[in-house]
Amino acid sequence: MTARVPIAVVGASGYTGAELVRLCAGHPRLELAVVCGERSAGSRIEHVFPHLAGRVSMELEPFDAARVASRAEVVFCALPHGQSAAAAAEMVGRGRLVIDLSADFRLRDPGAYAEWYGPHPHPRPDLLEGAVYGLPELHRDELRAVKGGARIVAAPGCYPTAAILAVAPLLRRGLLADRSLVVDAKSGVSGAGRSPGLATHFPEVGEGVRAYKVSGQHRHTPEMEQEMSAAAGRPQVVTFTPQLVPMSRGILACVYGEPRDPSIGEAELRGAMVDFYRDEPFVTVVEGGLPDTSHVRGTNRAHVGVHLDRRAGRVLAMAAIDNLGKGAAGQAIQCLNLACGFEETDGLRGVAAFP
Amino acid sequence: MTARVPIAVVGASGYTGAELVRLCAGHPRLELAVVCGERSAGSRIEHVFPHLAGRVSMELEPFDAARVASRAEVVFCALPHGQSAAAAAEMVGRGRLVIDLSADFRLRDPGAYAEWYGPHPHPRPDLLEGAVYGLPELHRDELRAVKGGARIVAAPGCYPTAAILAVAPLLRRGLLADRSLVVDAKSGVSGAGRSPGLATHFPEVGEGVRAYKVSGQHRHTPEMEQEMSAAAGRPQVVTFTPQLVPMSRGILACVYGEPRDPSIGEAELRGAMVDFYRDEPFVTVVEGGLPDTSHVRGTNRAHVGVHLDRRAGRVLAMAAIDNLGKGAAGQAIQCLNLACGFEETDGLRGVAAFP
Amino acid sequence: MTARVPIAVVGASGYTGAELVRLCAGHPRLELAVVCGERSAGSRIEHVFPHLAGRVSMELEPFDAARVASRAEVVFCALPHGQSAAAAAEMVGRGRLVIDLSADFRLRDPGAYAEWYGPHPHPRPDLLEGAVYGLPELHRDELRAVKGGARIVAAPGCYPTAAILAVAPLLRRGLLADRSLVVDAKSGVSGAGRSPGLATHFPEVGEGVRAYKVSGQHRHTPEMEQEMSAAAGRPQVVTFTPQLVPMSRGILACVYGEPRDPSIGEAELRGAMVDFYRDEPFVTVVEGGLPDTSHVRGTNRAHVGVHLDRRAGRVLAMAAIDNLGKGAAGQAIQCLNLACGFEETDGLRGVAAFP
Amino acid sequence: MTARVPIAVVGASGYTGAELVRLCAGHPRLELAVVCGERSAGSRIEHVFPHLAGRVSMELEPFDAARVASRAEVVFCALPHGQSAAAAAEMVGRGRLVIDLSADFRLRDPGAYAEWYGPHPHPRPDLLEGAVYGLPELHRDELRAVKGGARIVAAPGCYPTAAILAVAPLLRRGLLADRSLVVDAKSGVSGAGRSPGLATHFPEVGEGVRAYKVSGQHRHTPEMEQEMSAAAGRPQVVTFTPQLVPMSRGILACVYGEPRDPSIGEAELRGAMVDFYRDEPFVTVVEGGLPDTSHVRGTNRAHVGVHLDRRAGRVLAMAAIDNLGKGAAGQAIQCLNLACGFEETDGLRGVAAFP
Repeated sequence: MTARVPIAVVGASGYTGAELVRLCAGHPRLELAVVCGERSAGSRIEHVFPHLAGRVSMELEPFDAARVASRAEVVFCALPHGQSAAAAAEMVGRGRLVIDLSADFRLRDPGAYAEWYGPHPHPRPDLLEGAVYGLPELHRDELRAVKGGARIVAAPGCYPTAAILAVAPLLRRGLLADRSLVVDAKSGVSGAGRSPGLATHFPEVGEGVRAYKVSGQHRHTPEMEQEMSAAAGRPQVVTFTPQLVPMSRGILACVYGEPRDPSIGEAELRGAMVDFYRDEPFVTVVEGGLPDTSHVRGTNRAHVGVHLDRRAGRVLAMAAIDNLGKGAAGQAIQCLNLACGFEETDGLRGVAAFP
Repeated sequence: MTARVPIAVVGASGYTGAELVRLCAGHPRLELAVVCGERSAGSRIEHVFPHLAGRVSMELEPFDAARVASRAEVVFCALPHGQSAAAAAEMVGRGRLVIDLSADFRLRDPGAYAEWYGPHPHPRPDLLEGAVYGLPELHRDELRAVKGGARIVAAPGCYPTAAILAVAPLLRRGLLADRSLVVDAKSGVSGAGRSPGLATHFPEVGEGVRAYKVSGQHRHTPEMEQEMSAAAGRPQVVTFTPQLVPMSRGILACVYGEPRDPSIGEAELRGAMVDFYRDEPFVTVVEGGLPDTSHVRGTNRAHVGVHLDRRAGRVLAMAAIDNLGKGAAGQAIQCLNLACGFEETDGLRGVAAFP
Repeated sequence: MTARVPIAVVGASGYTGAELVRLCAGHPRLELAVVCGERSAGSRIEHVFPHLAGRVSMELEPFDAARVASRAEVVFCALPHGQSAAAAAEMVGRGRLVIDLSADFRLRDPGAYAEWYGPHPHPRPDLLEGAVYGLPELHRDELRAVKGGARIVAAPGCYPTAAILAVAPLLRRGLLADRSLVVDAKSGVSGAGRSPGLATHFPEVGEGVRAYKVSGQHRHTPEMEQEMSAAAGRPQVVTFTPQLVPMSRGILACVYGEPRDPSIGEAELRGAMVDFYRDEPFVTVVEGGLPDTSHVRGTNRAHVGVHLDRRAGRVLAMAAIDNLGKGAAGQAIQCLNLACGFEETDGLRGVAAFP
Repeated sequence: MTARVPIAVVGASGYTGAELVRLCAGHPRLELAVVCGERSAGSRIEHVFPHLAGRVSMELEPFDAARVASRAEVVFCALPHGQSAAAAAEMVGRGRLVIDLSADFRLRDPGAYAEWYGPHPHPRPDLLEGAVYGLPELHRDELRAVKGGARIVAAPGCYPTAAILAVAPLLRRGLLADRSLVVDAKSGVSGAGRSPGLATHFPEVGEGVRAYKVSGQHRHTPEMEQEMSAAAGRPQVVTFTPQLVPMSRGILACVYGEPRDPSIGEAELRGAMVDFYRDEPFVTVVEGGLPDTSHVRGTNRAHVGVHLDRRAGRVLAMAAIDNLGKGAAGQAIQCLNLACGFEETDGLRGVAAFP
């Protein structure tokens, strides 16, 4: 049996961190070596997250770069933006592979980072060049080329993952007109993290739906535009409307565009999607139904579909993912698998516990 | 004290019917005289709907046109389309005012009815001409002109109510470009009615979100287009994406368009909305927040807002309503109030029981 | 038309306070004169609670005893225990009727208060004697005798309201054996108030059920015992298990006891309940079904029932209420109606907006 | 690598069947060979259950005993009671090991079966003697003795699993008095199966809680009593109150009893539980918190706890499970693992996808 790769999860007291811990515990090639969480340092992780009891038993530690680097070969950073860059820099400086789940290394352009995440400039623009955007369906070769080296993989945001997966096949084939795209996305509440606040207090969201940070205020916008532009080979502009629905996990993204060729049929649009995802282990082009977040809950899977409203001259591309799975921790593991030369589906073959 | 107007609710074993019963029971000018429901005829309505116990106690009857007309002056028809036209025709033929909550009298064009609700042609096209579309914010004068006569008021669908309220002020002012509109709307499950089915079985919808009848398949599309075209004074085309979210009541409609004048500001858009709804008793242009269905739950109110994404050249107009309130029974009562010359807010002053 | 009684709601930035505001706005004999809320003083209440927009528009003020007393005849105190006693004392000292929704005046015995709410002793034991426990079904005459005077009505806790209504008719008739009662109660999350915390963060409670403060730790225990003992005419001891279920409003209390006479039939138990509640305007003994919190949501109603498991020698008495309605604000208004000589159902005739 | 054991799932169009398929797909020693489902025969299972897409792709077949027996060594029967006995008899007659998930082989006493599941007598009382009750924590040796033979394992009901796990350690040690036990249990809606009905229609259960089949009407009662009596070594009687809460999965059972020795402490009760479950791979005695169904969602785990209310002389034992996991399919796999001599946790090491 091959030795397992020792892993550190930094930021393990949040939901994404806990999901990483869960996935590492079930991964055949990984060994969870260190879990760090400032808020809960000194506590046992199975007390902070009782769902881990009986399966994972470790003490949460404060983050100490030298100690983490000495015990782990790969480090997941699931910290708030800004903090994550600092931790990642320390790890990569010590020769470790970093899978960063914050926004710090997602935008290629440090100017865009300053604009959207400012007022401060990007803390380590020098590291951006070597960073890989961790969406395997679009960047698999770059991820494979990492080869476990001292590099940074920037795991995408949850909303961008859904929106990009929905529309990238169409953009790659040049099937959409050069007009701004609308991304209307509905998310479960865990996307807001584990820190309580009025906006995520149960009675405030339990039996209603509402939008937030509309019209270009949400920081996932430039990330979508960067990747959609790359897929299309020309600049793409996005209007993004994030919305909160009363469920814990899941994102359904509806992306609206216009067909470049008004006479195109739905079959051709769908064909482009089927071709694009034919060999993808985690993406299903849904047949005879529509994507539903409950069908991918707790997994690294994406369910996608495309529809044409010929009367209105509109294309609707959709994707359903789990914001903590394919939208965060699952995708981070998928990136690690590629970067370390493992089977891409290792530790990620779980099926949604529907219903 | 004025005598109360005797009312019949036909179709009282469904959710819309029950909501009509609830609202009639609290209305100062109405008296519930007859409740009809085929499925539950012979049962007491407070057993079919235990939330009415202690407040309403009546036996559900099978529908008999002569008996209903002899006891009620105004008849609410909350039957499936097709059936409702027949019942409404009998009532209006007997000199009764009918508030019809089905789709049978909403579309002015019998050809459009046949296309969307066919294969059969409209059963009573002769009655369409006298019917009034019951959205008071757009048709108040016509509703007042009914004056309790032998007429039909067609209460709007739930999705159209939300979408039209969101965007009509902008269309009236000519602020949107002549391009198709996107209506991305999220609904609570009660919109599907009380008949159980797999698509509304709790575990299938309880912890997920999904679309249905996308890309021009949903029958509320022509109704939106009819009213939006009338508001704009030129034809409007709509792509409509209905979605189911895990809550019982509420619709949040996000309507996306493009500004006619690219240099327009959000303040001007908002000003048009504020002007349009200034004297409306049931519509609030939300300040310092965003529309949330839980803020209008159980009421006849609408919360609306408008936002501009200047980077993308997009306008987002939103409305939150209760699909059974402003989207059905509440609005039907509001129409009755206007048609009968009552205070428009009679029986509708309730505030949402938030949270 | 009679002049309306001016009302103050102190603690109006919490859920109970907002529900009081909502109910006052719809009450034919009351006029909302002052709303106080420390957290949000200076804000408009319709911004703090957007569901009030279009119906209530007032500025939240900091609490100032003299100013409040000068403008209101009846004062609702919906503050945390300890704070509420102080405010209530100031109001009653100024000749105002106080309806207190905290725990400060519920326990007749100041020793019990110190034991359960300590370590400090009761701040104003002198006021306890004149206080009336505001459960009209058990204390209607005392409430009527208040006659709007400078008195304190202690509105019951939400759990005690449900548990006492379920079992009081049986205790009054002496139908239960002298053994401890089990109260297993399930509550919506709004019972925890509007202050966010991990225990009420949506993802932590959204799709699960759990107990808290079990085995005699919850402070509603002595209140149940006090009133159940009074009803039975002998000391009653209660094991109380509060539980959180993923909904915003509602309590279902299951109370388990043993029949005093093993040969008693269910009909006799039920008869006692029907007799007891025969003339009650807000309590329904459910027929042909079982109490369901969704049938009383947003109302002052209680649905109750009783069942006998003869094999096991167990009686199960149940009650479903809305924790913010009959369990808090609704009941407080009912008490006010009695204390002020109004119609008992004034402002409380609303029916649940089911579903 | 060892050859995988070929498996049939009969009743694969229901939720329990789908969960069995999901677990078999992730099990290192099993190979899914046949899936039968009358309702959906001829359809692909990944269309009936889209969450399986990309992972399982098989056609659902009608049940044909000879064909199933020829292709599978172990057969899971997840059919309604009555039907399941017939299928199981055919399979065991053909030398197959049957894990039956219906009620048909759970009750040792055919008279009790006729009483609770009648009016017909048990269809195959001759098979009862060889059947093993599949709760490994109480019957592990019997399950191991099956050794993959032509035998029937009766997987327990979901409610009994939770209730028995909560209280068995106390009964085994004789710590509870000889009085009837109260089982107050709250279940997610998937426990009612996939066939839609009014009682499980989303709007009817989405935002409320209610009991059903109270006071000895629910058929899981005799199963609880059988196993609790066996654990105690003396007859136990149970009052059982099943309740529906608005979530898809999970059961929280609260079991109330009285301590045999009034002077016992909580530590001693807890010690009995810790001892009993010390080596159990799937049961955690919760520390520093309380069992929560969301912590075991989608898994074969149980979280248990015990509390003493000394004032009231009551013991509260609790267990949280997933009704489709430890309460059905997970436990069935656990039984198979024991009966086939596999590692007991094979295919069951998954952790809940919290939140």
